[in-house]
Amino acid sequence: MKIGYIGGGSHGWAHTLINDLLQCTDLAGDVALYDIDYEAAAQNAELANGLASRSDAAGNWTFGAYQDMHGALDGADFVICSIQDPVGETFVHDIDVPQEYGIYQTVGDTVGPGGIFRSLRAIPQYREIAAAVREQCPSAWVINCTNPMTVCTRTLYEEFPDINAIGLCHEVFEIQRLLADIAESYIEAADNVSADEINVNVKGINHFTWVDEAYWYDHDLFRYLDRELEARKPLPQFEPGELREESYWINHHQIAFDLYDRFGLLGAAGDRHLAEFVPWYLDIDDPEEIHRWGIRLTPSSARTAGGEGPAKMKRHITDEAGFEFVDSGEEVVDIMRALVGIEPIKTHVNYPNQGQVPDLTMGAVVETNAVITGGGVAPITAGELPREVRSMVMRAVNNQETLVEAGFAGDLDLAFQAFLNDPLVTIGRESAHELFADLVDIEREYLQAYNHDSIAGLKG
Amino acid sequence: MKIGYIGGGSHGWAHTLINDLLQCTDLAGDVALYDIDYEAAAQNAELANGLASRSDAAGNWTFGAYQDMHGALDGADFVICSIQDPVGETFVHDIDVPQEYGIYQTVGDTVGPGGIFRSLRAIPQYREIAAAVREQCPSAWVINCTNPMTVCTRTLYEEFPDINAIGLCHEVFEIQRLLADIAESYIEAADNVSADEINVNVKGINHFTWVDEAYWYDHDLFRYLDRELEARKPLPQFEPGELREESYWINHHQIAFDLYDRFGLLGAAGDRHLAEFVPWYLDIDDPEEIHRWGIRLTPSSARTAGGEGPAKMKRHITDEAGFEFVDSGEEVVDIMRALVGIEPIKTHVNYPNQGQVPDLTMGAVVETNAVITGGGVAPITAGELPREVRSMVMRAVNNQETLVEAGFAGDLDLAFQAFLNDPLVTIGRESAHELFADLVDIEREYLQAYNHDSIAGLKG
Amino acid sequence: MKIGYIGGGSHGWAHTLINDLLQCTDLAGDVALYDIDYEAAAQNAELANGLASRSDAAGNWTFGAYQDMHGALDGADFVICSIQDPVGETFVHDIDVPQEYGIYQTVGDTVGPGGIFRSLRAIPQYREIAAAVREQCPSAWVINCTNPMTVCTRTLYEEFPDINAIGLCHEVFEIQRLLADIAESYIEAADNVSADEINVNVKGINHFTWVDEAYWYDHDLFRYLDRELEARKPLPQFEPGELREESYWINHHQIAFDLYDRFGLLGAAGDRHLAEFVPWYLDIDDPEEIHRWGIRLTPSSARTAGGEGPAKMKRHITDEAGFEFVDSGEEVVDIMRALVGIEPIKTHVNYPNQGQVPDLTMGAVVETNAVITGGGVAPITAGELPREVRSMVMRAVNNQETLVEAGFAGDLDLAFQAFLNDPLVTIGRESAHELFADLVDIEREYLQAYNHDSIAGLKG
Amino acid sequence: MKIGYIGGGSHGWAHTLINDLLQCTDLAGDVALYDIDYEAAAQNAELANGLASRSDAAGNWTFGAYQDMHGALDGADFVICSIQDPVGETFVHDIDVPQEYGIYQTVGDTVGPGGIFRSLRAIPQYREIAAAVREQCPSAWVINCTNPMTVCTRTLYEEFPDINAIGLCHEVFEIQRLLADIAESYIEAADNVSADEINVNVKGINHFTWVDEAYWYDHDLFRYLDRELEARKPLPQFEPGELREESYWINHHQIAFDLYDRFGLLGAAGDRHLAEFVPWYLDIDDPEEIHRWGIRLTPSSARTAGGEGPAKMKRHITDEAGFEFVDSGEEVVDIMRALVGIEPIKTHVNYPNQGQVPDLTMGAVVETNAVITGGGVAPITAGELPREVRSMVMRAVNNQETLVEAGFAGDLDLAFQAFLNDPLVTIGRESAHELFADLVDIEREYLQAYNHDSIAGLKG
Repeated sequence: MKIGYIGGGSHGWAHTLINDLLQCTDLAGDVALYDIDYEAAAQNAELANGLASRSDAAGNWTFGAYQDMHGALDGADFVICSIQDPVGETFVHDIDVPQEYGIYQTVGDTVGPGGIFRSLRAIPQYREIAAAVREQCPSAWVINCTNPMTVCTRTLYEEFPDINAIGLCHEVFEIQRLLADIAESYIEAADNVSADEINVNVKGINHFTWVDEAYWYDHDLFRYLDRELEARKPLPQFEPGELREESYWINHHQIAFDLYDRFGLLGAAGDRHLAEFVPWYLDIDDPEEIHRWGIRLTPSSARTAGGEGPAKMKRHITDEAGFEFVDSGEEVVDIMRALVGIEPIKTHVNYPNQGQVPDLTMGAVVETNAVITGGGVAPITAGELPREVRSMVMRAVNNQETLVEAGFAGDLDLAFQAFLNDPLVTIGRESAHELFADLVDIEREYLQAYNHDSIAGLKG
Repeated sequence: MKIGYIGGGSHGWAHTLINDLLQCTDLAGDVALYDIDYEAAAQNAELANGLASRSDAAGNWTFGAYQDMHGALDGADFVICSIQDPVGETFVHDIDVPQEYGIYQTVGDTVGPGGIFRSLRAIPQYREIAAAVREQCPSAWVINCTNPMTVCTRTLYEEFPDINAIGLCHEVFEIQRLLADIAESYIEAADNVSADEINVNVKGINHFTWVDEAYWYDHDLFRYLDRELEARKPLPQFEPGELREESYWINHHQIAFDLYDRFGLLGAAGDRHLAEFVPWYLDIDDPEEIHRWGIRLTPSSARTAGGEGPAKMKRHITDEAGFEFVDSGEEVVDIMRALVGIEPIKTHVNYPNQGQVPDLTMGAVVETNAVITGGGVAPITAGELPREVRSMVMRAVNNQETLVEAGFAGDLDLAFQAFLNDPLVTIGRESAHELFADLVDIEREYLQAYNHDSIAGLKG
Repeated sequence: MKIGYIGGGSHGWAHTLINDLLQCTDLAGDVALYDIDYEAAAQNAELANGLASRSDAAGNWTFGAYQDMHGALDGADFVICSIQDPVGETFVHDIDVPQEYGIYQTVGDTVGPGGIFRSLRAIPQYREIAAAVREQCPSAWVINCTNPMTVCTRTLYEEFPDINAIGLCHEVFEIQRLLADIAESYIEAADNVSADEINVNVKGINHFTWVDEAYWYDHDLFRYLDRELEARKPLPQFEPGELREESYWINHHQIAFDLYDRFGLLGAAGDRHLAEFVPWYLDIDDPEEIHRWGIRLTPSSARTAGGEGPAKMKRHITDEAGFEFVDSGEEVVDIMRALVGIEPIKTHVNYPNQGQVPDLTMGAVVETNAVITGGGVAPITAGELPREVRSMVMRAVNNQETLVEAGFAGDLDLAFQAFLNDPLVTIGRESAHELFADLVDIEREYLQAYNHDSIAGLKG
Repeated sequence: MKIGYIGGGSHGWAHTLINDLLQCTDLAGDVALYDIDYEAAAQNAELANGLASRSDAAGNWTFGAYQDMHGALDGADFVICSIQDPVGETFVHDIDVPQEYGIYQTVGDTVGPGGIFRSLRAIPQYREIAAAVREQCPSAWVINCTNPMTVCTRTLYEEFPDINAIGLCHEVFEIQRLLADIAESYIEAADNVSADEINVNVKGINHFTWVDEAYWYDHDLFRYLDRELEARKPLPQFEPGELREESYWINHHQIAFDLYDRFGLLGAAGDRHLAEFVPWYLDIDDPEEIHRWGIRLTPSSARTAGGEGPAKMKRHITDEAGFEFVDSGEEVVDIMRALVGIEPIKTHVNYPNQGQVPDLTMGAVVETNAVITGGGVAPITAGELPREVRSMVMRAVNNQETLVEAGFAGDLDLAFQAFLNDPLVTIGRESAHELFADLVDIEREYLQAYNHDSIAGLKG
């Protein structure tokens, strides 16, 4: 079995995969690590091969670094994508420039000006990946771990409609954890409930998905939500500045519960993500105001190497000796095991809509549960969304579809339509245009697939 | 033939109808004027009967005032609705209270906090009208002239699905006038082009409808729009304060053209209305800022009796002697003539969607062209909207459908869902709630059909 | 103005057009007659030019014959299509071979084995026409008069999606005539009612379209249909053999009324056509059995030159001198006048579904009313069909869509799927295959655009 | 835990349930057997209680007979429905009377005249069941085992939209068995493959469902289907009369493969059922003709007590002593275990369409896979059907929806619309009516919920 890994020089995802594969006893083969930073991939390969030879490593895996994506994908059974633009030249701008216009983003990787520009940069890259898959391993299963999850996965299908691809994200697990805690609180028989014992009906799009049913065995957890909501009130519960010392990733589910309070469904992603899909939470004048909802803005500094970002939050594999295999909690290897027919798995995935959420656009990438077997990925029907929830979700779906269309056409004017309809773009019509043009200008190097005549002209 | 007129004490619409009927030679009968202000209806009746006896009055019409709506509708062939809440106690609040929260509205009768509260007040009234029609004249054609046009007309159908009702609005005529001017400018053969010579394909919802095709005979006017756009640039073209002396109803089509520039379709209503359906134009800190787009805010003072409102802008019929019959340009009488089989007419109407805009919600009230004959109203297919335009329109459609549902259920929490998703509600989540609760509180007398427990509780 | 006429050597349609154009005072220009039988086209041109010079001919038209379709279409404003395969080698087989298998067809030009093979032959021809239009006159309006109407018109759009094309058929006029008679019978005020005074709501597909509303001015004619139905009973009313001496085109509306009796809508085409869309009427063992429903089978002999076919039923223009200009009742010239902006017309047309019948396939060619102006063709919404009527119509729509797909792919196996699902193919599975293969074999010359391997192999 | 069993006096299903419950170690409780034949229910209860006390019986179950359905359902957690009209007075007519008109049915319980009349009789019964569930045990899960499966299950939801109900049928297991055999034949590694190792994508409606994907672990079995088809040719493979000595239930999958050959999907029910959904296979003149396709007609005699029917084919539980617990292969108990949260199961079920087959009518009962957990039944998306397959399936869906509507309205005229559109009703229009009226007449006792005026009048 061959796994091609695009972004194979990364620390987070790549190290987790190495950890997980080397503990899996029923899969074996080669992992081809490709990265535009070849050195990083080579270091990962060396490290992994060393670990693979340790006595406590199960499985039989060989790791190699590739300088060429096509070589890494040639004949692959699985392709994993986990890539990122240079943060300093992209993510920093995505966050900081809008802030000058009064637009605050808690994450900036999915919607908002940041999400839109990340999408515009990612689409050409993902077209290239899809084209390489078509050529080198058309039957492979592609597992995307990169944000913007929906746009990246959607691009793979737009470029190569016969591709087998899913997108994976952790956010729903957090909500299952929350619901496991609720089960423990309210059901006498429930002790040490693990997140994966919670059956949730998931529906929506990545980072703006919703749960309208939750069970622990046959216990309906929604019957406890109103009591839990009361216990968590007032919403918001915090003071500006109160979370100054907390992690940027802190989350109190205040927004998830506020959405439940107003719309009857639980927002099923971290509050940092949920906040960006509507204009009301981030209507702030100062970054610390958002603390009131129990979250912090992730500043651009947290994303860069020197910053206090995720790198600091996870113990990384740095040398073989000091490394201990852990239970990562990630599902990538379980999904691969399911797809080769070893053991089916039911989990939530990002996948083109073929009826699982029948009132969202068919073919758009949506997030719901699916059953994964040797026969592939079969999404589970999640049913329709209530009207006003659908209204909010469809706005994002439409924008994502428009961005993909704009990305394939290289049409910045079309992308600007999506920009104007973004929930965080509530600034004046001309400021919106100026901000868009500024971002195009400053990230021009990464937007070479686009025709710059029209928007550039408008700016002048 | 009998016409029941609900709101028959009004000056604007009622006087126009009197004028038009008394010039129509092929219709005759009785007009029953009903108004909650019976005196006003009686004055109108007296005036009209006097005019009817004048030698220059054609037709043979008798006018009578009614104190009871059911009596006025009993056996009617047509019902005309033109009603309004006491402005000082409703419209003034709709406009002024949101402004305290930083929400500026150019009109406030369709969307925005004002449009939402006007909807909430109108729904119970229109349920009552529909119920009276069902009982007194179930086959009559009901012509609604009241805003919020969509919600009022939709309510009629929700209460009495077999009703025959349409909503009429002037705004598209303005765009036809604009296009007639463009025809004159760009087509050598075109002189003295009248608005009704312009064939437009209309699609959308009232006050947020769009034109994507326009012809003068077989001349495609869209081929001149880009030149016209260039001629009208820069957009916006004005300075804050520049329109201080102008009428509140001034309109330079700057927003209609800006929407064309960005989305490829011409916004087909006055800019005052278009501006309220998106958050960008009214992101202002001072009322005069909006002058930049060639329009003014209509302040609440302009709506009240002493204000410099529409009353001052129209010559009204006040005494028989001094009255001259004029060509009002209104189509109500023409539409009645079509419906009794005299002469078909093609015009734009607000009517439940049965496929005329197939990508908007079926059954929602949409605005398109229709052919009106003795056989009734047959909407003309207008085709789909481009994705991002549909996204904006569907947001409003969803909100209107939610408001009607909330109005029938008396559910203010549900109405607040629509409020949160209103394009002008970009203020903080808690401020939004406070504003909503304030408006409920201050307009409580007109919202007696609603359950106040829930929202009231939230405010405390 | 230039009209390109494909099939310009024909007698029926071409002579009618000559007649109509030469009586039209506000159009003038050139008519380019193209026919694979150049001689016939040249004769028509000569005849027409002669007539054009007569003193009683209005308009200013020049007629010319072309040996090349592209030349005839070059720069045309209108294209008229009226073509036919050699009847003896195609239509005769379409009718006679199925009869050997027990399948009787009253017409055989739309559905049934005959309709299917006529479709398969027509699709490559209409692709060629659409390609020529794209190249020579992409903005021209194409008016198709050839059967199978739906498949031919649909093929034009499939080949060249931006084409402007409609299909015209007379059958609905007959139903308007029927309803005009009913108006005269039941409404005292109604005398000499002409068919075009009857407003009908038309919905369905050509030759299987339905009327669910009919008005003479504002008189609802459907309220008289039950009485009329009773007056026309028993259904069927005739005896086998009773119509032996009648025209093959005789029609008593027995089937239209039987469909009304069972489904509540009036079948809106001649009974000869309606009978072929369901299996029940033509379940006969002898051609004369069908007389019971007031119609006759049109035998293949009626189609050939020597037969007692339509040629005998219409007075043709054969020499200038003996010719008198008549009111043909055809609308082609009126439609051209509407499209150049002279006078709008409302009539029924075959046109891609964009919502006019929202429960039929979008993009499929459906038959409804439309308003035709200088701005083009705007279909009028006709609303949904009742479930069981939709079921019957959708079966035919699906088959037509499949045939077009098969025609473009050259895939006879796919065409056979439609054949098996044809309403008249109630014979055994293997006989169905044998009949299909027989027809492919015998009409092979006209099916050269298809891959014959698969079906041929199956036959062996 | 309480199980209410409607039809608890039956031999087949009831005995199987007793067998399965008494081998299940993790469920226990009461089973309330209700039957209109109380004696039969009482005998079953006595037998079951005796068995329950045997040492080899696991579980702790008590069985009781009820004379009143409401009592049996009072407080039930599960309701099982397995009922049947007196065969001699209904099923015999369903089969034999149509045969007099030349309509042969292989089963006659789903479509065809037999299926339609069985539906008409079942709808009032299932309304009563749904009403009793609503009153006695609204949260119970209802498992329907009765045919016509789709109509019965659909009726439950139409009467009580909040019901929790599924329909179970064995037919797809047969296709999984067939595919397991194919796996064994073509895949070297495959030995002793059990049916439940085969993952199929199921989509359609009960007895006319289809498989378009099949996997044994990650082996794609569809790649072997063409070879298997060739091996099974010629289709049909048998001679008339050849199966004279075989069981009435014999099945060679000739029709399933013929459908695969023509439409690319495998028909996923027994050929006896598949044959009835199209007119071609049963176009026979003699019952033995159908042998050619490897099946027999099930004559009415096989259904009656003295006949050689299913009673003879299954060993029944008749006395405690001689009884041995067996592995029934039924899933009812597994599904109950899943629904109480013990162990999830993935299987195919009949359930209202909420997007699992997005091109079939929403809300209609369709057959697809589902995941069943403590949280309920979550159908798995199966995707769209190819056009011509959808055309055939939609015809049946429309008829089933119409029958349910007719059953609720008591409208035999509406039911006759479905009758005319039934695939086996290819007889003449008047014969069709006569046959329908005959069946109404002869089964009148069971159709008392219907208004007989209209159809009766038509017959006279």
